[in-house]
Parts: sequence; structure tokens; C-alpha cells
Amino acid sequence: QETKAPKFGDGLLNLVGQDSSWTMKIGARAQLLTTSSWEDGGENSLNFLVRRARLKFNGYALTPKLQYKIQLGLSNRDMAGASPYTSNSPRYILDAYLKWNFYKNFAVQFGQGNLPGNRETLISSGNLQFVDRSRLTSIFSLGREFSMQLSHHFMLSEQFKIKETVSIAQGEGRNVTTGNEGGLKFTGRVEVLPFGDFKSGGELVGADLKREETPKLALALAYDYNGDAVKTRSNQGGYMDSDIGLYETDISTLFLDAMFKYQGFSFMAEYANRKADDPFAKNEDGSLTGDAVQVGDALNFQSGYVFPSNWEISGRYTTLNLDQLVASSNKEQYYTLGVSKYIRGHKLKVQSDLSYLEIANSNNEILYRLQVEIHF
Amino acid sequence: QETKAPKFGDGLLNLVGQDSSWTMKIGARAQLLTTSSWEDGGENSLNFLVRRARLKFNGYALTPKLQYKIQLGLSNRDMAGASPYTSNSPRYILDAYLKWNFYKNFAVQFGQGNLPGNRETLISSGNLQFVDRSRLTSIFSLGREFSMQLSHHFMLSEQFKIKETVSIAQGEGRNVTTGNEGGLKFTGRVEVLPFGDFKSGGELVGADLKREETPKLALALAYDYNGDAVKTRSNQGGYMDSDIGLYETDISTLFLDAMFKYQGFSFMAEYANRKADDPFAKNEDGSLTGDAVQVGDALNFQSGYVFPSNWEISGRYTTLNLDQLVASSNKEQYYTLGVSKYIRGHKLKVQSDLSYLEIANSNNEILYRLQVEIHF
Amino acid sequence: QETKAPKFGDGLLNLVGQDSSWTMKIGARAQLLTTSSWEDGGENSLNFLVRRARLKFNGYALTPKLQYKIQLGLSNRDMAGASPYTSNSPRYILDAYLKWNFYKNFAVQFGQGNLPGNRETLISSGNLQFVDRSRLTSIFSLGREFSMQLSHHFMLSEQFKIKETVSIAQGEGRNVTTGNEGGLKFTGRVEVLPFGDFKSGGELVGADLKREETPKLALALAYDYNGDAVKTRSNQGGYMDSDIGLYETDISTLFLDAMFKYQGFSFMAEYANRKADDPFAKNEDGSLTGDAVQVGDALNFQSGYVFPSNWEISGRYTTLNLDQLVASSNKEQYYTLGVSKYIRGHKLKVQSDLSYLEIANSNNEILYRLQVEIHF
Repeated sequence: QETKAPKFGDGLLNLVGQDSSWTMKIGARAQLLTTSSWEDGGENSLNFLVRRARLKFNGYALTPKLQYKIQLGLSNRDMAGASPYTSNSPRYILDAYLKWNFYKNFAVQFGQGNLPGNRETLISSGNLQFVDRSRLTSIFSLGREFSMQLSHHFMLSEQFKIKETVSIAQGEGRNVTTGNEGGLKFTGRVEVLPFGDFKSGGELVGADLKREETPKLALALAYDYNGDAVKTRSNQGGYMDSDIGLYETDISTLFLDAMFKYQGFSFMAEYANRKADDPFAKNEDGSLTGDAVQVGDALNFQSGYVFPSNWEISGRYTTLNLDQLVASSNKEQYYTLGVSKYIRGHKLKVQSDLSYLEIANSNNEILYRLQVEIHF
Repeated sequence: QETKAPKFGDGLLNLVGQDSSWTMKIGARAQLLTTSSWEDGGENSLNFLVRRARLKFNGYALTPKLQYKIQLGLSNRDMAGASPYTSNSPRYILDAYLKWNFYKNFAVQFGQGNLPGNRETLISSGNLQFVDRSRLTSIFSLGREFSMQLSHHFMLSEQFKIKETVSIAQGEGRNVTTGNEGGLKFTGRVEVLPFGDFKSGGELVGADLKREETPKLALALAYDYNGDAVKTRSNQGGYMDSDIGLYETDISTLFLDAMFKYQGFSFMAEYANRKADDPFAKNEDGSLTGDAVQVGDALNFQSGYVFPSNWEISGRYTTLNLDQLVASSNKEQYYTLGVSKYIRGHKLKVQSDLSYLEIANSNNEILYRLQVEIHF
Repeated sequence: QETKAPKFGDGLLNLVGQDSSWTMKIGARAQLLTTSSWEDGGENSLNFLVRRARLKFNGYALTPKLQYKIQLGLSNRDMAGASPYTSNSPRYILDAYLKWNFYKNFAVQFGQGNLPGNRETLISSGNLQFVDRSRLTSIFSLGREFSMQLSHHFMLSEQFKIKETVSIAQGEGRNVTTGNEGGLKFTGRVEVLPFGDFKSGGELVGADLKREETPKLALALAYDYNGDAVKTRSNQGGYMDSDIGLYETDISTLFLDAMFKYQGFSFMAEYANRKADDPFAKNEDGSLTGDAVQVGDALNFQSGYVFPSNWEISGRYTTLNLDQLVASSNKEQYYTLGVSKYIRGHKLKVQSDLSYLEIANSNNEILYRLQVEIHF
């Protein structure tokens, strides 16, 4: 007895409840990664990893105006981050939220999901142009957290679209069970699409697989203020312990980003900047604990062209400048060349990239990665 | 390609194997919670949490007489409790048992599930009248454990029903992988339903959403004896370490509970009492380790009325009296006022409650909670 | 609204994507175990355990030549082994691989799965003849790991089949996220089936439930070389820490195994042998760390007869001889008598076995186990 299912890449099952009272699309994906690296003066190292493996459930309940999403991370890297702050449990749930379109173009979202931060974070890890995100995101991303978000969008002209989101959260990242430490975190993001919508939400998809017929552009600014923050990367990174409990300081993060796509060509740029009131964690007597907020900035540019055969050549340049007082390797530069074969778009693809890492006060490194992604 | 599914709240899928050789109902649910608390002389604290998220699989195999249930807890709180006694793995499985109706009204259950303890524990966390269970249950509940249970029911008259369950278990709670420490745990529960069955098993569902047309009552007594118990709350709480291994003492727990429902009105009462042979954990030389069995008693009363609009107003009073030698906060009182909107019964609901906590030798506290539950 | 599903034991769902572009069989199973043991001069101990609980997804993507398998372990024992080397996350993923039949009888497998080691490991834990695998496997098994495997098979005559697999892996076991320590691990296995294929892949299924009409035999040799290995059982067991990082030594493992089946009778034999260049982990100054590679050998014989009523009587003898310098209990012997009732083959079965353990320098022990397995 067989059950008919959607075509490849469109979900395992598209459930529709009786009288269309609810829907659920069930998806699953995995990324199998092999990495080879050569450090100056070191030996080659060959590594294998199930990089990501996910189960996703989304749809609506009772009315299309009440959307939900649940996403689970199955791989060890997906679940990493267990600590006393997460009940020593793995961080298995990635997303778990309800989103209610309560009035016209207004929607409120309640639950755990991405915060409205930088574009590269908002692009699903299943839709990336390279094997993985850039160093900018690994240092500055706001990632996921339980929050209340209010979003809205409107048209300035027939094509010119503006989208705004504001969010309030605890400010300590996802899956925290111990309640709020320090103060609250406020985030806002405004995005403009002057030439209209990208095909299939392409402003949040790497590579121009849809081959936009007219030039499409998205520009966005996001700002985040985390009052009395207790972690080294605002709501990410490690907790800053001191001898009188957690060290607290105000942290702000600014993002500027852009996406451009046209006829197979794509270009993405991002800038990130983090400031802290006093980045150096201190004990009661003022002595340094050794922890510090990772203040500084980063820049990322990446571009690619998808040939009609769905092979893509892409390049990326990332530079990270942490404040020299908080990091010894305060200047990092990454040059990456990528080759991807999109067998069924982002749903079955083989991606490979070669990077050259120039890291101040550290050995330079060459990194080769090959990843297969399968996404039902 | 879409797959037709049950109506909202009746499961994601109701699978029926070829020739009705087996069935499986797949369910999923999540609770999104926000909490705000004010302690006397303290600041307000605002917290967000994915309180529970569950996947449930139940049905029969080969014959309706062989039932099974598997339930998985996905949230960090659901999985909390990893320890060397659980292979340092999260406690992901909640239920995993087979139940075989081997003769007339007799059934034997083998596997992990709820022990036949107090009513509030046996009410699914998806069917509660308030945002969460009372303090009585958090201190005295027997919770889940792998056990062998024998159950039976019979009619004393046309309406008067009696149900009995006895159980044997290791006595250290769920998901233990290290085998039995100390002795065994024996539990028994007898429940009487003098006026016949509640609608849809309503004796184990909070709030009278079914609006019983005639008064319905359930009364139960449960008793548990845990020989050579090694944890502070019988099979729950922490392990009592000593310098010669785990401290062992006999612990007994008694429960009395009642549920009444009529035309939207409901009333539930519970009494719990725990005794220990010698509650104070000792080292070899008789010195105290600092651990103690939480002996004492508690009382919980709660009542509510569901309006025809499916709004409910409810109230709860809980008092906990731990023995003054084992707890400094030996007298705790909780006054709770609840307001719930059951949009689709317990399957999509918004619940909110406001509690006043009077705790001896501690600051009083006001606690406000708002929770959304969605249950496919 | 019900969904028709396969017959019992054939999966929860057999999904077929539109235009047969992909398939997925979803399976689930659980093992509920109770164990009773008596040690010489000790008390009886009674234990309960959800031994295994699994979810399995397998099928093909785009073409039957591209197979995949994902298997998740839900029970605490299944997930055990969290460590800093696994991002302190539970080892939830058992299998996650793609297997591509790229040319004629050649296939390449990429991802995490069983290494081509001994037969008893390759027999699914859901298809065992006894309640659990033998001591040989618990000490010498290569288990699962992320690897690249090349496999091939050919016919020497009309019936004589030969299968070969070679594999390359990191050599530290499954779910490792920290990259490769020490050197690489190379494994090869050759299997011959001189009298043709067993029914339904029976060379990797315990007990002759299919009652082979003609005698069937499988013989195999596997060899594994783990260069600069860092764990006590090659890629299994514990990491060997020293004061200058992980201790590294070359470890090789040899397996010989056989399976014979005929008319309900089955016989399986295995031999395993592990050698290490220098089994004793040392610090920089040459002092012993206390860790040692578990070098030695083991032998396992087991046999059974399935009656037409699908009751089986079986016997097993296992002897383990670790080198006397690495283990105090250097000689272990296990005598096991098993009785199984296969209600629906391996899909619903009750298995029970009684073992007598003779362990050098330790008390002898009697072990009784009863296990129910249900497999959708």
C-alpha cells in the first residue's frame, strides 16, 4: 500500500485537514560534508561530518491567517549548545512559533525562530550559495531566539515594497529554560524592494536559479539593542561569568545588507558592526574575568553566475576586524571560490568551495569543502 | 499532491494498515509560554519558553487488544534530567509501552508510561485547566517510569464503575539505563465512578468542555511503596549520594483525589502525603549528607466554569506543608485565578493565570503566565 | 479521515513522489527489555529498560540508483556517548547516507552508517536471534561511522556470488563533530555466497524464518586498519588521553564469519582479533596513562532451529580472551540458551534467553532476559 506524495523537493507530505481546517507540509533534509584543510607548516587533515539534518513542519491551523512552523535539528552540530541554561538538554528545537496575520498587512509572531537580523542568517541553510555561511554571520548573527515579533509590509508604488519587523526577546539565544538573565533585547529590520518581489522569495535564496528577467534588488538595515546582555556575542557565544554572577553590559549590533539578482547573476553584500558599553567582563573588584564582548565589524561580498546547465561559479570575500583588545587574531580575511551543481535546485545539489584564510597572528590556511545536500 | 488528513485536533494522520492489521494515530503539540513575575522588593522578570513540544504515536498492532503508545518530548524542558543514570542522554522518550487486554476486563501494560498515581499527573499536560499543574504534583507526583501494570475494571451496578491498577517498577523514574538501585516500587490505584463514565474520558480532562448533562463524579485512592528508595521524591527528585553509595530508605506516598463535573462546572480536589522511614540521608558514620526525602503533605482544590462561548473562569488553591526539618520554606500557599479561551477545546487554546505565592521564610511573589497551545 | 498504510511490519508509510521521482519508507520500532541477574553471592537484581527505539527513513531520490537511509535512535541507550567530541550532543543520528550505483555493479556510499565489519554488527538489531548481540561484537565491533565506501559484487558462476566493500573513515566512531584525530581508518570486507542468495537477504538476518529449501552459506573476511588510532577499541570505546594530547597507535582488527541456513536450522560463527602497535597509552615521559587498547580475540558460535509454529530454540557460546596485560578479567565465557516466539517474524516477537557468565577474577553470574520487540 503506497501513499502518493508531492514531487521531489516539495515535501514528504502535504497534509490537508478535513474541510481545509489545517495544513501541514512535512520536509526533511540533510547535508553531508567532507572537509580538507592545510595549515601553513601543518599536515593535511581530512574530516567527515553530518553537517545538518532537519525535520520541518509548517502550515496553518484553522485559518490561513494563523501560520505555524516547527523545525527540529537532528545532527550533533544542529543540537550543540547544551548547558545548565538549557536544562543540560540538547538544543533540538530550532523553530517553534505561531504567526498570526491579525489585521491587514500586520502580523504578530510568537515563539522561537530567527530574529530579524542580517540577510545571510535569514537565508535558510538549505538555500546557501556556498557550502556554509560566511565568517560575518558566525561572529555577528543574532540567530534564533524566542521572541514576539510584529511585522508589516506595504507598497510605496506599484513595485516599491517595504517590509518592517520589530522584535522583543530575552537576549540569550535559543532554547533557554532558565528565564531571562540581564535585560531585554530589541531588534528592528527594514527592507526595501524597489523593483518588486524576487521570484519565489529569492531575496532570501542564494544563487539566481530562477534567472530573474528584470533586475531585482533588496536593501535592508537591521539594528539590535541588547540591554544588560550577558553573552560575548550579544545573544550568542558564551556566558560571561564573574564572581558576582553574570557580567552585564549593553550591546548593540548594526547590519546593512543587499541582494541583487539578474538573469542568473547574483550579488550579495553585508556589513555588520557590534558595539558594547564596556566589552570587558569584570569581577566585583573590577578585575578582568578574561571574557570580552566580541566588538568590531565585518564585511562580506559574494557573487555568482548560474549557467543554464545549473552549474554555478561563485566568489566570496569576507573580512573580519575584531577590536584588537578583545581578540588576538583581530584581522581575518577569507577568499573563497565556489563551484556548485544544482541537480534539482537547492533540493539536490553538490557544492564545493576552496578558501584561503589569512588570519593575523596565526598560520594561513587553505580549506577545501565538498558537500552534498538532499532536501525532500 | 496532497494527502487528506483528519479534522483539526484529531491527529496529523490516522494510519490504518492493510486488512486493519494495525493502526497508528500520529499527533503533535506545542505550548508557547510567557511568564512575568514580581517578587516582593525585586524587579519584574519577563521570560519566554517553549514549555512543551511533543510527538505522539498510538494505536494497535495485529489486534485491537494489543495497544501501544510512544510519546517523545522535544522541548528542552521535556528532555531535562540527563545524568549518568540516563547514559548522559536527554530523556527524550516519555511513553513507550504495550498494553495487552489478555482476558476479559484485564489488561497488562509493559513499558514506560505514567504510574497509577494522582489524578493531576494522569491528566495529560495538553488537557490542563490552568497553564500548568499545581505545586502538589510538582512535589509528590510519581510521574513516569518503566513498569509492569495490571489493570482491571468492572461495574458494581449499571452505572457504578470501579477501576483498579497495580504496578511494579524500579523506583527511580523514567529513562534510567543503569538498572535498579535500591529496591522495587509498588503502586496501586482504585477509582470509582458512581454515576457512570464521564463524556470522552472527562475524569482525566481539565474543565467541563463537554458540559455533562448529569452530575459526574470520580473518586480515587492511590498508594505507593518504594522500598529502599534512593531519590528525594521517591522515584523523582535528586539521587541521595553518600560516602558509601546511594542512601536508601523506604518511602510511601498516599493520594486521594476527586473530580466532579456538571453543565460546564468542574471541581477537582487532591490530597497527597509522603512518609519516609528515615528521611535524612546519612553517610556511613551516621553524619548527614544534606539530602533529605521531601516528606510532608499538600492539598489542592480547583474549580472552574466554562461559558457557552468556551471562555472559562477558574480558581485554584494549593497548600504545601513539607516537614519543617527537611525544608526551610515549609509552608507554601498558592492562590491562582485563571482565564482560558478554548478556541477548539484543548486543541487550540489560550490560557492565562495570575498567582499569588505566599512562601514561608521567602519573599511573596506574583506570577502572571500566558500560554498558547496548539495540538494537531 | 484515514490513510491506508502497508501491512503490519512493512513500514508506517511507503511514500512515492509524483512521477515516481522519489520514494520513502518510514519505519519505527521499539524493544522493551526486562533483565534479571544473579551474581554469585549477590542479590537478585530486576531491571527494566527501553532498550532501543528507532525511526527509519529510506528510499531513493530522483532515480532508484541513488538510495538514501536515515535512522534515528530515540532511546537513552541509542543516544548514549555524548562527549566534547560530539558537541556534547546526544548521538541521535545512527545512519545518514547516500548510496549511488554509478556504474554497473559498483556503488559508492557517502555518509554515516555501518562500516563493513563483522556479520553480527551488520545484522540489524531488529533481526537478532537472541535478545542482544554477543560479547564478541560489544568488544570488537567497528560499529557505525561516517565513511566513503566503494562496493561491488559479481557472480563467479550462476550461483556463486562475491561481494566486496572497501571504506575510508576518520576512525573515531559515529557523530564526531571535532574533525579527525590521529590518522585514517581503512576497512575491507569480502563475502562469498557459494550456493546463491539467501531468501530476503537472510545472510544478515538471525534465525531461519524463511526455511531455506536448499542449504545456503555465506563466508566473509573483514580487515580493518586504523592508523594512529586514539580510542581503546579502534574507533569505539574511550579516547586515550595523555598529558600531550591523545595517545596514538596503529590498530588492526580481523574478522572471519560464517552463516549457514537450511530448513529452519541456522548456524553462525565469528572470530575476531585485534592487534595494536603499542596498546599501552603513554604520557610524554613514557609513563603509562592507565588506558590500553583492548587487544585480544574472541569466538562466537550460535545455532537455532525454528519450529513450523515459529517458536525457536537456540544456543550460543562466546569466549573472549583479552590480552592479560590490558584486562584483569582476561578470560570470559558465555553460555546462552534462547527461546523466541516470532509472532510476525522479527516484526512482533518475544525473545528470552538465559546466560551463564564465567568471568576470570570475577564472580560468575546468571542472567535472564525477556524482550518484546515491535516493528512497524
